[in-house]
Amino acid sequence: MKQILLNSFASFSVSHNHQGLWQHPRDQSLDYWRLETWTTLAELLERGLFDGLFIADGLGVFDVYGGGPEATIEHAVNFPKNDPATIVSAMAAVTRHLGFGITFNVIEELPYAFARRISTLDHLTHGRIAWNIVTGYLDSAAKARGIAKLMPREQRYAIADEFCELTYKLWEASWEEDAVLRDKARGVFADPKKVHRIVHEGEFFSLDAVHYCEPSPQRTPVLFQAGTSPSGVDFAGKHAECVFVNGPSTENVGGRVRRLRQAVADAGRDPRSLKVFASLTPIAAATDAEAFDKHAEYSSYIDSVGSLARLSAFIGQDLSTLDPDASISGIESNSIQSILENLTANGGRKVRDAANSLNPNGVQPMVVGSGATVAEEMIRWVEEADVDGFNLVQTVKPEGVEDFVTHVVPELQSRGAYKTAYAEGTLREKMFGAGAYTPDDHPSAKLRRAANAGPSAVAQPAADVNA
Amino acid sequence: MKQILLNSFASFSVSHNHQGLWQHPRDQSLDYWRLETWTTLAELLERGLFDGLFIADGLGVFDVYGGGPEATIEHAVNFPKNDPATIVSAMAAVTRHLGFGITFNVIEELPYAFARRISTLDHLTHGRIAWNIVTGYLDSAAKARGIAKLMPREQRYAIADEFCELTYKLWEASWEEDAVLRDKARGVFADPKKVHRIVHEGEFFSLDAVHYCEPSPQRTPVLFQAGTSPSGVDFAGKHAECVFVNGPSTENVGGRVRRLRQAVADAGRDPRSLKVFASLTPIAAATDAEAFDKHAEYSSYIDSVGSLARLSAFIGQDLSTLDPDASISGIESNSIQSILENLTANGGRKVRDAANSLNPNGVQPMVVGSGATVAEEMIRWVEEADVDGFNLVQTVKPEGVEDFVTHVVPELQSRGAYKTAYAEGTLREKMFGAGAYTPDDHPSAKLRRAANAGPSAVAQPAADVNA
Repeated sequence: MKQILLNSFASFSVSHNHQGLWQHPRDQSLDYWRLETWTTLAELLERGLFDGLFIADGLGVFDVYGGGPEATIEHAVNFPKNDPATIVSAMAAVTRHLGFGITFNVIEELPYAFARRISTLDHLTHGRIAWNIVTGYLDSAAKARGIAKLMPREQRYAIADEFCELTYKLWEASWEEDAVLRDKARGVFADPKKVHRIVHEGEFFSLDAVHYCEPSPQRTPVLFQAGTSPSGVDFAGKHAECVFVNGPSTENVGGRVRRLRQAVADAGRDPRSLKVFASLTPIAAATDAEAFDKHAEYSSYIDSVGSLARLSAFIGQDLSTLDPDASISGIESNSIQSILENLTANGGRKVRDAANSLNPNGVQPMVVGSGATVAEEMIRWVEEADVDGFNLVQTVKPEGVEDFVTHVVPELQSRGAYKTAYAEGTLREKMFGAGAYTPDDHPSAKLRRAANAGPSAVAQPAADVNA
Repeated sequence: MKQILLNSFASFSVSHNHQGLWQHPRDQSLDYWRLETWTTLAELLERGLFDGLFIADGLGVFDVYGGGPEATIEHAVNFPKNDPATIVSAMAAVTRHLGFGITFNVIEELPYAFARRISTLDHLTHGRIAWNIVTGYLDSAAKARGIAKLMPREQRYAIADEFCELTYKLWEASWEEDAVLRDKARGVFADPKKVHRIVHEGEFFSLDAVHYCEPSPQRTPVLFQAGTSPSGVDFAGKHAECVFVNGPSTENVGGRVRRLRQAVADAGRDPRSLKVFASLTPIAAATDAEAFDKHAEYSSYIDSVGSLARLSAFIGQDLSTLDPDASISGIESNSIQSILENLTANGGRKVRDAANSLNPNGVQPMVVGSGATVAEEMIRWVEEADVDGFNLVQTVKPEGVEDFVTHVVPELQSRGAYKTAYAEGTLREKMFGAGAYTPDDHPSAKLRRAANAGPSAVAQPAADVNA
């Protein structure tokens, strides 16, 4: 049976996908800022053999609901939000296998410094880093970056494409495989003939520099992406090794998975090599009845204003102006396309229902039940929707993850659907079972091969890596 | 007696101030990329009651010597260099008091994301973060940032001044002191009336955003700076709480200290509140004779090409083109002013001597001897040059630090010149003995007071914090 891949989905913030749960008496979300919160979570996830901790991020405050950020500030709606790259090293020090998937927005990063940060983290973790590539959707994030208004989606993906090309050059084409010698006796650290300047003059970025880090275990980190728009799917087809999909049902998600695998094939890559992670919120307990009670108890903390503040930002529409019984209908904006589609399907979900549901964003699936119930539902999703794993949304923290590890992991294992030990090697080797580097059909791999094709003087950029 | 402050001075790189010591058989510099290297160092420094670990940084490869980066790559001259912000959380997890002073270049950072990173680190460490503000000196760093040539020094300091003003606004003026309520029962995380948008339209930066992090223990990190040029001294007078000075003698450094304290007074601040750290390389052992032997042994590993590659970049002159017996004379460039001045003083140091000295950059002081000898020399520096402490340059790693902790720390303590236990509180409280925040005469403090002066609607920027 296919081995299910699991990420725990988190935000370096008070709340994430379920507004109001921070008020639950047992919830420890207010300790989000403490180092111990994250090292404890990492140890717990490694006990549960999770493949990764996947941290959402983005630098914009939700300010669409009510025309300002007031509700977001008062209700702690993904706010405040600290820098997730800072906590990786502490978590890496207390784990040996857990991967760290960090979200970085190409509009909020400078490529040379970003490439160095990723290489550093990949070194420190012995190759356990993934990058979730996002382009943003919030004008507030653009304003924080000094841009008056977020550019349209097509342009954002064009920026992302060039940003990726440039960082691939730094990671793959600057240092040849045998450039580093570490020869104490001769006093030669590296062979300068095998370390190349990257000269990039693009539409959005320019750079002329040697990559500042020696090759890290994976060179290019494992690449996640989550776009559902046509531009997003095209981008995934070219770049993504893993995608994150949001959908209310196996039919809905299954359709998206087909489109994504087709896009990968259209880009000349193996469509089966794409790992698809579906969003899922598990609420597990010893028995179905206990889990239903827990669901009811959690649900009593749902914060409808906070939920609508988040949704309003996601779909670019101020839901405070609609009647609670009105249906959410399609609008054109820099929205998160998958959530907009899910909300407006079948005539549109009522504002009231979206606000009061424990389902994330009012539309993403939950599974409530005993370990066996949750495990079987997950296996059904894998079979029917052709997904490879899940980004499991956290609920009451850390109780929800503890319940999953206690009740669901053994049931998945007993059904042969989940590993009983970690594989050795980097995150890419663990997840894909092949090498530490991107596969040959990935655009980054062509740059690596070019760099190793022959000697180039360091003072001259290698022409073949600067297409 | 004045209590001497101590930082250990490091680089997330193979080599730092002494080229060639990575080849020493006992040296572990090639493990620079490992997490354990840094957590072990942090534990060692905390055993020695060091105030901080001070990490140099900058994104440019030295490419002046020989007209290219070949020597730098071959000889590992501050190269490769990984991202120091990434290792703080792991070191924080194994220590309780040690401060972390990280160098960030204002030209290589985006202010909103940078302010968030600093606030996050200050939260994770319970207020142990310092920022060493630099403006760079390398064209190679500018090119890595997409800028064809580094701007002149005056402009760089103008950028730094505005960058600081903007980040002070984010740290000090966005969140009022009592904005955060964390009220689970009422479901109120923060009072939106007390969280302000920062609207900045400057010459170099623009931004319109709420600071993304709740106030961290220190809000503004402890501020280090190191410039010696007239612009640098003016900048220090206005902004620096601590300065780092390079000079070969107590007379030389004493003169710089007088100019710096005068600049602080000229800016309307208390000149005695400035903490001055002198660069010093200690080589300590049980006896003077053993220390001299160690100095001779270390010296036999000095790499003259690597030393000149570094110096050439520091002073903007290709020293490979000079005769070894020529004297280094003054040149005008975006150099590190203090090192240029030290090298060219008294007719100029010979190229050969600069290349073959174990003294960092051929001009920075070393103290070699027993613990008592080194301690007494340090006390003499404090008395004669009016410095407050030292950035101690590492030699063979980690042996040099171990030797200092073993031999020198007890001798400093027995002379009443060094603490025997850490004070409680944030890094600023430990170092200055007053509050966790910047003092009232610092420009950042005025912004904090303005933010707390009265209620302002979150949708409207507080006019008084946008001077």
